[in-house]
Amino acid sequence: MRRLNLTRKLFESHRVSGSMEAGEELALKVDHTLTQDATGTLVMLAFEAMEIDRVRTELSAQYVDHNLIQQDFRNPDDHLFLQSACRKFGLWFSPAGNGVSHPLHQERFGIPGKTLVGSDSHTPAAGALGMLAFGAGGLEVALAMAGRPLFLKMPLVVGVRLTGRLPDWVSAKDVVLEMLRRYDVKGGANRIFEYHGPGLDGLSAMDRHVIANMGTEMGATTSVFPSDGEVRRFLASQQREGDWVELLADEDADYDEHVELDLSSLEPLIALPGSPGNVRPVREVAGEPVYQAYVGSSANPGLRDFAVPAMMVEGRHVHPGVSFDINPTSRQMLESLTLESYLGRLIRAGARIHQAGCNGCIGMGQAPATDRNSLRTVPRNFPGRSGTREDRVFLCSPETATAAALTGKITDPRELGMDYPRFGEPQAPKINREMFVAPADEAGDIELTKGPNIKTLPDLEPIARDFRAPVLIKLGDNVSTDDILPAGSEILPLRSNIPAISDYVFRNVGREFSDRAGDLDAFVIVAGKNYGQGSSREHAALAPRFLGLRLVCAQSYGRIHWQNLVNFGVIPLSFADPDDYASIEEGDELAIDDPVGALEAGGQVDVHNKTRKRTYTLQHELSQRQIDVIRAGSLINRLREEDR
Amino acid sequence: MRRLNLTRKLFESHRVSGSMEAGEELALKVDHTLTQDATGTLVMLAFEAMEIDRVRTELSAQYVDHNLIQQDFRNPDDHLFLQSACRKFGLWFSPAGNGVSHPLHQERFGIPGKTLVGSDSHTPAAGALGMLAFGAGGLEVALAMAGRPLFLKMPLVVGVRLTGRLPDWVSAKDVVLEMLRRYDVKGGANRIFEYHGPGLDGLSAMDRHVIANMGTEMGATTSVFPSDGEVRRFLASQQREGDWVELLADEDADYDEHVELDLSSLEPLIALPGSPGNVRPVREVAGEPVYQAYVGSSANPGLRDFAVPAMMVEGRHVHPGVSFDINPTSRQMLESLTLESYLGRLIRAGARIHQAGCNGCIGMGQAPATDRNSLRTVPRNFPGRSGTREDRVFLCSPETATAAALTGKITDPRELGMDYPRFGEPQAPKINREMFVAPADEAGDIELTKGPNIKTLPDLEPIARDFRAPVLIKLGDNVSTDDILPAGSEILPLRSNIPAISDYVFRNVGREFSDRAGDLDAFVIVAGKNYGQGSSREHAALAPRFLGLRLVCAQSYGRIHWQNLVNFGVIPLSFADPDDYASIEEGDELAIDDPVGALEAGGQVDVHNKTRKRTYTLQHELSQRQIDVIRAGSLINRLREEDR
Repeated sequence: MRRLNLTRKLFESHRVSGSMEAGEELALKVDHTLTQDATGTLVMLAFEAMEIDRVRTELSAQYVDHNLIQQDFRNPDDHLFLQSACRKFGLWFSPAGNGVSHPLHQERFGIPGKTLVGSDSHTPAAGALGMLAFGAGGLEVALAMAGRPLFLKMPLVVGVRLTGRLPDWVSAKDVVLEMLRRYDVKGGANRIFEYHGPGLDGLSAMDRHVIANMGTEMGATTSVFPSDGEVRRFLASQQREGDWVELLADEDADYDEHVELDLSSLEPLIALPGSPGNVRPVREVAGEPVYQAYVGSSANPGLRDFAVPAMMVEGRHVHPGVSFDINPTSRQMLESLTLESYLGRLIRAGARIHQAGCNGCIGMGQAPATDRNSLRTVPRNFPGRSGTREDRVFLCSPETATAAALTGKITDPRELGMDYPRFGEPQAPKINREMFVAPADEAGDIELTKGPNIKTLPDLEPIARDFRAPVLIKLGDNVSTDDILPAGSEILPLRSNIPAISDYVFRNVGREFSDRAGDLDAFVIVAGKNYGQGSSREHAALAPRFLGLRLVCAQSYGRIHWQNLVNFGVIPLSFADPDDYASIEEGDELAIDDPVGALEAGGQVDVHNKTRKRTYTLQHELSQRQIDVIRAGSLINRLREEDR
Repeated sequence: MRRLNLTRKLFESHRVSGSMEAGEELALKVDHTLTQDATGTLVMLAFEAMEIDRVRTELSAQYVDHNLIQQDFRNPDDHLFLQSACRKFGLWFSPAGNGVSHPLHQERFGIPGKTLVGSDSHTPAAGALGMLAFGAGGLEVALAMAGRPLFLKMPLVVGVRLTGRLPDWVSAKDVVLEMLRRYDVKGGANRIFEYHGPGLDGLSAMDRHVIANMGTEMGATTSVFPSDGEVRRFLASQQREGDWVELLADEDADYDEHVELDLSSLEPLIALPGSPGNVRPVREVAGEPVYQAYVGSSANPGLRDFAVPAMMVEGRHVHPGVSFDINPTSRQMLESLTLESYLGRLIRAGARIHQAGCNGCIGMGQAPATDRNSLRTVPRNFPGRSGTREDRVFLCSPETATAAALTGKITDPRELGMDYPRFGEPQAPKINREMFVAPADEAGDIELTKGPNIKTLPDLEPIARDFRAPVLIKLGDNVSTDDILPAGSEILPLRSNIPAISDYVFRNVGREFSDRAGDLDAFVIVAGKNYGQGSSREHAALAPRFLGLRLVCAQSYGRIHWQNLVNFGVIPLSFADPDDYASIEEGDELAIDDPVGALEAGGQVDVHNKTRKRTYTLQHELSQRQIDVIRAGSLINRLREEDR
């Protein structure tokens, strides 16, 4: 008999339909949903369009953590809209100031063995508790809220066996940076990383959160940790021990792939600017001047991630050339930091204390100066994501960031010449849940609060039978959703206003892209490998679709973006022959005869290059369910068909 | 013999030239200067243009407190530029995160009896220590840094005799709101308010800061408090008792005007949306729903201003419909708030803790939602200053703001049914001065760090001898510099880039103003009373001047803006006959023959309305020194002439 890994057990217990053979589509029951404000307004508008009274999950929670900079009425209006939607539809509401969704969900609501779908690419962080958690497009989350299952292809399960214990000055961020060093930003595609082995004993539930969170950076579908004694201890610390259940893989469980990672062999690591996969030992880049050192985000949310820096800086002062930015995880974390005077020590040493939330992690303030190095504990350093177009953002542990804050240059923290601070979890940690707003008992006559910037979704037409359109842009490898539609405080406030946000498509990449698209009925995008990696924001699919995108031809895709394209009726094809990519140029006219028929005829589609008079064979991996979405023009159109 | 008030003593001890008769121009030696980052870049660029090695004041300090939202490279580049300018030119530098300039200057550098000129309209707050402090345009501050005196007209001195003690639930903000109720936003013009009398005993140095700070809202030139035992106690608490010197008015001193204010008669007051002068008792508007309650800013910077709210909310929770925004004054204040767990009490109750700085007070985040009421302890509520164009901002004390946070509606704090919290100053207050960067000993080869958004100042041509130009806009009374050039996070980052920022002139008032100005060589503005009240930002003069403004015809002026207009070569005239204002319409062509000659010929100037074939007599109050500036085209041009 097969010895089951935990991932397969979780899949099996939630499988509604489909096969668990790798690569096959299956449907999973969704227990929890998570939405944040940048994607949540669209989720709520979609949910409203479905005309369903109340969410049908066990628990749905809406967090306000992204758009905290209130430059005008738009962000605060969205916050009020979301709060009203939570009351009407039966979700928990976490207001601005409460903190970052992923650690909050882990603290307040996470339950081992449950499934979670979130409209944020770092939703897999919940794997730290033995949950099966997926990032998804907002439409898919709206469907999950409506009680529909999540469809996905069964990934490979990679068993990551951890042994040994982390040395001094090496922490959870270094573990996931080591994984990124091995897998880079696409090596985890179609894979779930399941961590097991004796090395787990040294990793707290929040340490595991760090690792599961940044599994997303490898392109992984999700990450899973067992629900063991550490998880029990964590839930007890949150006064929720009753929610604990033990969940482990069978002994000597089967995995599709195997990895060994000896924690005792690790050293401080750092990802160089441009990609989370550019990982090197810190010592190799030591001495570079540093302008900003940044601690916080969902990729280092634990109390120890702030307490260790506080102990490191005690009695010292931040280098006068460094902005030492502290981004507390949550209201609860900020309150906990008043314990043992951690917060006071940081302030005294010269830290700049920001409000609890995502902040600079998603380009919402804290952009670095021109040509200056910024060391951050955040999960991503795609170019421009910081807000500064040609930025120089490094990813590292809190220990490494704090060492740089003290010295003014990149510093291996082992070289500081101080004893590694011994952090002990507090006996009575602070619990601060009073600002969560529970769902109303029933919708009654609750009205949605819609400010003037909250617009209904545009109608999306089905694709033409005689599809023919030019290639408006040709892109290289690893184009991220940040490249497609930048984040940042100028753009994110427009997320509930699709015509307005569409002006920003490829703003940092293509010359006047939206103007050029404006002259066309339809257009095509050609891209290299891993197109649409990164953030799950579906505006990166919806806004180009609004401008006229109907077909993408790429060498491969980021999983969530691929799904978002389909949900908005864009056909994502993959090159069968890599050389075909090289032979297409911007401006070429591409055509497909009867696109829907071609998709239904099998896995291959002929695409005619009318300009070069060639025909390419491209592949698709769409299920019949997804082809029906393409035919209808979008998932919302398809749902309307089903309702008729 | 005349019994001198303190103001006259301070003038006399710093008078370089001119007469102390009210209305006469005189020149004062400047001991200290203060610059903040929104205006400071222009000050440093002007100082650089003067080719002077080092500041010639006793002390100059540059604070970074306004542009803390780093959306891209521009704000952080400015911070680096300012830090490099401080090293090169010999100023103290207070970096981002250190806090708000006015209370910081009071804590670290303020010395009774010194003069201070600052490129921020709330600089008069330093009057709390018995300093003589003026807000001024950046050019005037640059001149002061160069060792030149400050020119101003001798104002009237109003003696404000305070008696009695404040009742429970009434605090310093209510005192200045009572002054605003009496004087409104222009009643203080050409006046200095000197506070004296037995009521002073109950007002700490930071309470006096609140009152002196918002004297600006009455249009006052400045406010002055004596340097008494309270000031000594304050300086001792900052470990600077040695800087104290007693400074008092002579007994039964003479004042130009007299006011009596019995503190014991006051009740909680609130300024309704639109103007700091719309003051009513809180009880008259109690019950209105509240969306935001906001504590902080230079207009309520003291420890008690946060500690009293912390004690009020202990064991309670913020209403779920309210965002309770706490804006710490400074790094030192934030550290002090960890004493007695003040900060922890605020967090636990549901407050949203922001970084130390000006933040929403100058429209840098924290904008309220559409049609929602915001109660703030900030000094100003001009429409749109919050960032939300049609906002509803009320000004009130920390007690009144906190009462609203708890109840969700405007509430007279006396009606809360709780005992008034008794605040005692801490025995050993926190002192945090380590992040201040002292000036380098000498400039040496320090280079200025100029990012790509930092542009040299445009050249400004002298006015034509046959001046003729249309009225591009006609405005009513009390147009503020916020109306002329809005603040906010979209616009302020452009302050070192005059062509770019000029696009925003009258953005919230005039239809496509900059486009219409772009077609003209020169234009005229016609306005009612108190034109250019409010913030001192000289961009409100320089940007219209860059677009072609050469002449303003108004019924009266805000003092600082009037000076800024002159400094940039714009002629500010006043209507002799108020009826003439009514007879000019937008689009009328106005002309002056030989404008400089006309100014020199006396206090009256004939202005011809070519459209209506009428001639008006307008008045000016320009000194010969200022006429020379007009002739040269700008103060910088005039300085260049002097150097030749």
